[in-house]
Amino acid sequence: MRLYVGLLHYPVYNKNYATIASAVTTFDLHDGSRLAKTYGVKTFYVITPLEDQQELARRVLRHWTVGYGAEYNRTRKEALELMAVSPSLDACMEEIAGREEEKPVLIVTDAARKKAPGLTYAEAKTMLRADKVILLLFGTAWGLVGDVFEKADYLLDPVEGFTNYNHLSVRSAAAIILDRLAGR
Amino acid sequence: MRLYVGLLHYPVYNKNYATIASAVTTFDLHDGSRLAKTYGVKTFYVITPLEDQQELARRVLRHWTVGYGAEYNRTRKEALELMAVSPSLDACMEEIAGREEEKPVLIVTDAARKKAPGLTYAEAKTMLRADKVILLLFGTAWGLVGDVFEKADYLLDPVEGFTNYNHLSVRSAAAIILDRLAGR
Repeated sequence: MRLYVGLLHYPVYNKNYATIASAVTTFDLHDGSRLAKTYGVKTFYVITPLEDQQELARRVLRHWTVGYGAEYNRTRKEALELMAVSPSLDACMEEIAGREEEKPVLIVTDAARKKAPGLTYAEAKTMLRADKVILLLFGTAWGLVGDVFEKADYLLDPVEGFTNYNHLSVRSAAAIILDRLAGR
Repeated sequence: MRLYVGLLHYPVYNKNYATIASAVTTFDLHDGSRLAKTYGVKTFYVITPLEDQQELARRVLRHWTVGYGAEYNRTRKEALELMAVSPSLDACMEEIAGREEEKPVLIVTDAARKKAPGLTYAEAKTMLRADKVILLLFGTAWGLVGDVFEKADYLLDPVEGFTNYNHLSVRSAAAIILDRLAGR
């Protein structure tokens, strides 16, 4: 499986649908890394152009991989070792392409479907099993802006629960989607 | 569906397998409530005997349901309205029994299986669809202590990903398990 996960902090919408760079949330770094480790993701990219936010993510990374945290909690170290920081979606795509010698397929996610037809979970699973290089991208704040959808190869079907409420945290959505695509 | 979810803060293990009351994590309150709303859970119980921690949970609840947050974000209000605070597992079970006029079936979760055979996701789903009253219980910190397993009717099979790593956050585990049991 050649699956990569990206958590995009720019460009995303804020509550009023203005384009912003969102703040890095440390809970996302931990939960995302632990998910990546559980589901065999190759790298979990935290994507932000803001240098202070990159530094925050790297500080968390250092604490848990080489600092005190690495001794305190070995399983957390194993997870956070899968995390990397990237300044932009383009840079992230290029890095993966260089590493895999193959352009990644960009699959984006959104709670409210914005493009039809979407990619089903069965279709995405088939692509994964066929060993395609995939970057599965999640947006923070109020979600990915339009430009990102233009760049995407596919828009994954939204998570649907038992109701019509579709306001999960990105942490929850990522957990559910990874389990659907790469769970046993 | 008569599904309830509980997040237990006492009694749970700490890193050294001593029994503790863990601190309430505000991210858990938000993510848990939003999951509950998405998957049609009747009430999301935050269970802790510590009064200051109960008050912290209630303060979050008030902010988002009647305070400033209720106007700022209506979908968050809808989610947090499903949250309730309970002082103990027994009190929580009693409250549900009183409300449903039926003793709830207690299903506990654990990342490392501690009792065999476990309840499969298919079996749990069948119970839910048969409209049984169910309390699905998650532990915080290093997990539920032995006494809680003794009280349980069933231990749900652990979440398995693509690897053998089983150190998800309780937020991620709850998301995955609710999707498996109550997803469309």
